[in-house]
Amino acid sequence: MKSWRASSRRRPGAATLFLLGTAYQGVGLALLGFALLAWALGESPRGFALGGALGLFLGGLAHRAARPQAEPPRTEVFLSVALLWLLVPTLGAVPFWLSGGMNYLDALFEAVSGFTTTGATVLKDFGQFGPTLFLWRALIQWVGGMGIVVLFLVVLPHLAVAGRGAFFAESTGIEKEKITPRLRHTAQAVFRVYVLLTLLAVLAYALAGMPLFEAVANALTTLPAGGFSPNPMSFATYTPLAQWLGTLFMFLAGVNFLLQYRLIFGREVRPLLLDGEFRAYAGVVLASGLSLFLYLYTHHAYGLEESLRHAFFQVVSILTTTGFASVDFAQWVVPAQALLVVLMFIGGSAGSGAGGIKVVRWLVLFGLLRRELARALHPQAVLPLRLGGRVVGEEVLRQVSVFVLLYTLSFALGALALALLERDFVVAFTASAQAIGNIGPGLGAVGPMGSYAELHPLSKLVLIFQMWAGRIELIPVFLLLVPEFWRRLK
Amino acid sequence: MKSWRASSRRRPGAATLFLLGTAYQGVGLALLGFALLAWALGESPRGFALGGALGLFLGGLAHRAARPQAEPPRTEVFLSVALLWLLVPTLGAVPFWLSGGMNYLDALFEAVSGFTTTGATVLKDFGQFGPTLFLWRALIQWVGGMGIVVLFLVVLPHLAVAGRGAFFAESTGIEKEKITPRLRHTAQAVFRVYVLLTLLAVLAYALAGMPLFEAVANALTTLPAGGFSPNPMSFATYTPLAQWLGTLFMFLAGVNFLLQYRLIFGREVRPLLLDGEFRAYAGVVLASGLSLFLYLYTHHAYGLEESLRHAFFQVVSILTTTGFASVDFAQWVVPAQALLVVLMFIGGSAGSGAGGIKVVRWLVLFGLLRRELARALHPQAVLPLRLGGRVVGEEVLRQVSVFVLLYTLSFALGALALALLERDFVVAFTASAQAIGNIGPGLGAVGPMGSYAELHPLSKLVLIFQMWAGRIELIPVFLLLVPEFWRRLK
Ligand SMILES: [K+]
Ligand SMILES: [K+]
Repeated sequence: MKSWRASSRRRPGAATLFLLGTAYQGVGLALLGFALLAWALGESPRGFALGGALGLFLGGLAHRAARPQAEPPRTEVFLSVALLWLLVPTLGAVPFWLSGGMNYLDALFEAVSGFTTTGATVLKDFGQFGPTLFLWRALIQWVGGMGIVVLFLVVLPHLAVAGRGAFFAESTGIEKEKITPRLRHTAQAVFRVYVLLTLLAVLAYALAGMPLFEAVANALTTLPAGGFSPNPMSFATYTPLAQWLGTLFMFLAGVNFLLQYRLIFGREVRPLLLDGEFRAYAGVVLASGLSLFLYLYTHHAYGLEESLRHAFFQVVSILTTTGFASVDFAQWVVPAQALLVVLMFIGGSAGSGAGGIKVVRWLVLFGLLRRELARALHPQAVLPLRLGGRVVGEEVLRQVSVFVLLYTLSFALGALALALLERDFVVAFTASAQAIGNIGPGLGAVGPMGSYAELHPLSKLVLIFQMWAGRIELIPVFLLLVPEFWRRLK
Repeated sequence: MKSWRASSRRRPGAATLFLLGTAYQGVGLALLGFALLAWALGESPRGFALGGALGLFLGGLAHRAARPQAEPPRTEVFLSVALLWLLVPTLGAVPFWLSGGMNYLDALFEAVSGFTTTGATVLKDFGQFGPTLFLWRALIQWVGGMGIVVLFLVVLPHLAVAGRGAFFAESTGIEKEKITPRLRHTAQAVFRVYVLLTLLAVLAYALAGMPLFEAVANALTTLPAGGFSPNPMSFATYTPLAQWLGTLFMFLAGVNFLLQYRLIFGREVRPLLLDGEFRAYAGVVLASGLSLFLYLYTHHAYGLEESLRHAFFQVVSILTTTGFASVDFAQWVVPAQALLVVLMFIGGSAGSGAGGIKVVRWLVLFGLLRRELARALHPQAVLPLRLGGRVVGEEVLRQVSVFVLLYTLSFALGALALALLERDFVVAFTASAQAIGNIGPGLGAVGPMGSYAELHPLSKLVLIFQMWAGRIELIPVFLLLVPEFWRRLK
C-alpha cells in the first residue's frame, strides 16, 4: 500500500521539467535549422549547431525525468512560467556567444532582451553579426512575443493574478473552460492575427523602400513590440512612408489581439471600438502625439510633416514598449524626453505583446482613486466600481493596486542599484524603467542610438532581472522568494 | 414652518469661515507682536504691522459671517484643513513681501514652505532679512509643525482617511471619544512634549557653541522637522557637537509625539520600544546611516568621525524630512545622493511632524505585498494581516495603498511639470520629491546650499501646490476636485 501511494504521487517539478524539455527541443531544432541556413549563406554555423545539439540533448534529458500533466497545480504553473522565460534565453544566447563575438554575459543580455521582447542591445559594432545572427535575434523576439500573448490571454487570467482574472472575460467569451481547450482556441486565434500582421508588415515595409532583409527582420520585431533592428540607426534612415507604416504596425502591436481577431476574421468592429482599454489607448496616442508634435514643431528644426511623423512614431514606439526610433530622441530637449518617460510607465493594452503596466490597469486605478475620494465623503457607502458595464470585484481592485505598487517598487530598486553602479541618475532611471517595461531604449548614454555594452557587468545582471521579472508581470518571480511556495511545490 | 427650517439650517462654509477667522486673528496678533519687536530692534516694522492689521480686519470680517460648530460635518472639516494650510500662509507671507525685499510670489513660496514645515527657500542673499524676519520664518515652522501634529493625531484619524483611522488607536487609548475632548487632551500632551524638546534644543545648541539667536531659530525649526535656518550654510559651519545634537533632535522630531509624551511624562518606556513603527524607523536610520558612513569613509576625504557624523546627520535630516545639512550633499558622488533620494520617499513616523509617506504605511504595504503573494498561492484563503498584534482591517489596507499610489502619482505629475519648465531631470525629480514630502533641499541647483529663487514662476506655483497637498496628506486637496464634495457641502 505504501509503495503504491509513493509511486502514484505527483513528482514535484516534473510538469515544469517536461515543459522546459519541450521548449529546449523546439529551440534546439530551430537552432539546427539556422545552422543549415548559416552554412548555406557561407557564414559560420558553429554557434547554431552547438546550441542546437545542446538544446536537443538537454531537452531529451529533461523529458526522461519529467512527465506531462493536463492540469498542473498552480505552483507548478508559476514555476514553469518563471523558469521558461529565464532558461530558454540561456540556450538562445549560445549563437551570440559562439558566433557573435560576445562574452556569455553579453550574449545572455541580448537573448533575454530578445525573448522578453525588450530590444535593449549590447551590440556596438553591428558588423559583428551576420544576417543569420540578426535573423535569429529577430526571430526570438517574434517567438517571445507570441509566447507572452498566450501567457497574458490564457495562463495568467486562469491563475487570476495581478488583476488578470477580470480583464478578458468578455473578449474571449470562454472563461468557464478549462485551461487546455482555451489555450488551444485562443492561441490559434492569436497566431492567425500575429502571422497575418507580420506578413502585411513585411510587405508594407518592403514596398516603402526598406531592403527586403531588413523588412523581414523589422516586421518580426514590430508585432511582438520588440524593437530589435539589424539597422544600427533603427528606423531613422528609412523613407518617411516606412516610418509612418512602422507607426501603424507598432500601434496594432499594442492592441488586444483577440479583439483584432474578431475584427479581422469575424468582421466585428464594435467589440474593438467599444472596448474601454482600446479607446483609452487610442486617446493617449492621440493626445500625447499631438502635444509632442506641437512641441517639436515649435522647438526643433523639423518641418510640419516631419514633426508629426517623429512625434507619433516616438509616442507609439514608447507607449507600445516597442522601442524603435525614427530619430535619436536622446538628443531632444528635456520636455520632449520627459513626455516619453511618462509614456514608459503606461504601456500598451493588456491583450497584446506590449510590456509596462498596461492601459487597463490605469483605468482600474483611476476608478479606484475616484471611488476612494467618494468614500472619504461617505465612509459607510458601498460603491461598486464599473468598467465597460461590468462590476470590477474588490479582489481585482486589490490585485491591480498591489501590482502597480510592486511594479513601482521594483523599478525604484532597479534604479537605485543602477545609480550605485553607473553613477548617472538619467541612465539609472531610464534604464530601469525601460527594462521592467520591456521597452528597449532609455535616455542619455543608453538612448535609442546608444548601447548597453559599456555598463558594469552587475548592471547588466540587474537589467536581466528587470527584463525577466517585468515580462512575466512580477508575481511569478516574487513567488520564488516566498518559502511557502517551495513548501507547497513538494 | 418653512421659515423655521430655513433659519435653523446650517449655513455651508460657516464653520470653516469661523476657523479661518480665528486663525487670521491669531496670526494677526502675532504679526503685531513682531512689529513691536522689529521696532524695538530698530528694524522696519511696516510689513508686520500692515500684515497684522490685515489679519485682524479679515479675521473679524470672517467671524461676523461665520459661526462655530462643535461637531462640524466631514465636508466642512476637510474644507477647513485644505483652506487653513493654504490661506494662513497668504497672510504670513506679508512681512516677507513688504519688509523682505521679495515679490509676493516669492514671499508666498517662503511662507507656504514655512507653514508646511518644508524649509525650501527662495532666499539667495541672506542679508535681505533682519533678525525679526528670520525669527518669523522660524516661528511659522514651529506653529505649522504643532498644527500638523494635531491634524495627524486627532483630526485625520477621526476622519479615517489615508489609513489614519488605525494608526494610533492604541497609543492614544481614547479612540471612542468625540473629536473635541480628544483634541484638547492630545493637543495638550503634544504641546508639552513639543515645548520641552524645543527648550532643550535651544539649550543644547547654545551650549555646543551656536550663537544664541541661531540656537533659538534652529531649535524652532528642528522639532517641526522644518529645516529653515538663518545661516545660509545650514548646520555646515557649526561645531561637530552641534551637528551631533542636531542629529539627535531631528531624530526625536521624527518620532511619534504621543509615545514621547508617555515616555517623558508617564515614564513608560515599553510603548515606545515595542512600537513597530519606531523600531522600523530606528532600523532605517541605523542601516542607512551605517551604509552611507562606509561609503563616505571609502569614497570621500572625510575622517572617521567626520564620515559618521555627516552620514547620520544627512540620513536623519532627509528621513525625518527636516532638511538641515551639515555639508553640501549635492556635491557628493551619485551613489551617496541616491541613498538620500530613497529616504525622501520613506519619511518619518506618522505621529510626528515629519512629512513623506511615513514608516507605518510602508509597514502596512509590505505586509500587504507579502499577503498578496500568499494569496496567489491560495486564492480562496482568508488571510488577516497583523501589525503590532492587532489585525489591520481591509479598509485600512485599501486606504494605505491608494494613498501611496496617489502620493506617487502626484509626485510624478509634479516632476513632469517641473521637467517641462526647468529642463533638468535631476532638479525636476528631486524638487518634486522634496516638496510633496515637505523636505526642503533637493539635488543639483536646488541642493541644500542652493535656492529655489531662480526657478520659473510657474515652477514655484507647482511647488507651492505640492507642499500644500503633501502636507495635509493629499485627500483633503483632491476632494476639492470632486463635484460631489461641493454638492454635499451645501
Ligand atoms: K521593446
Ligand atoms: K522640512
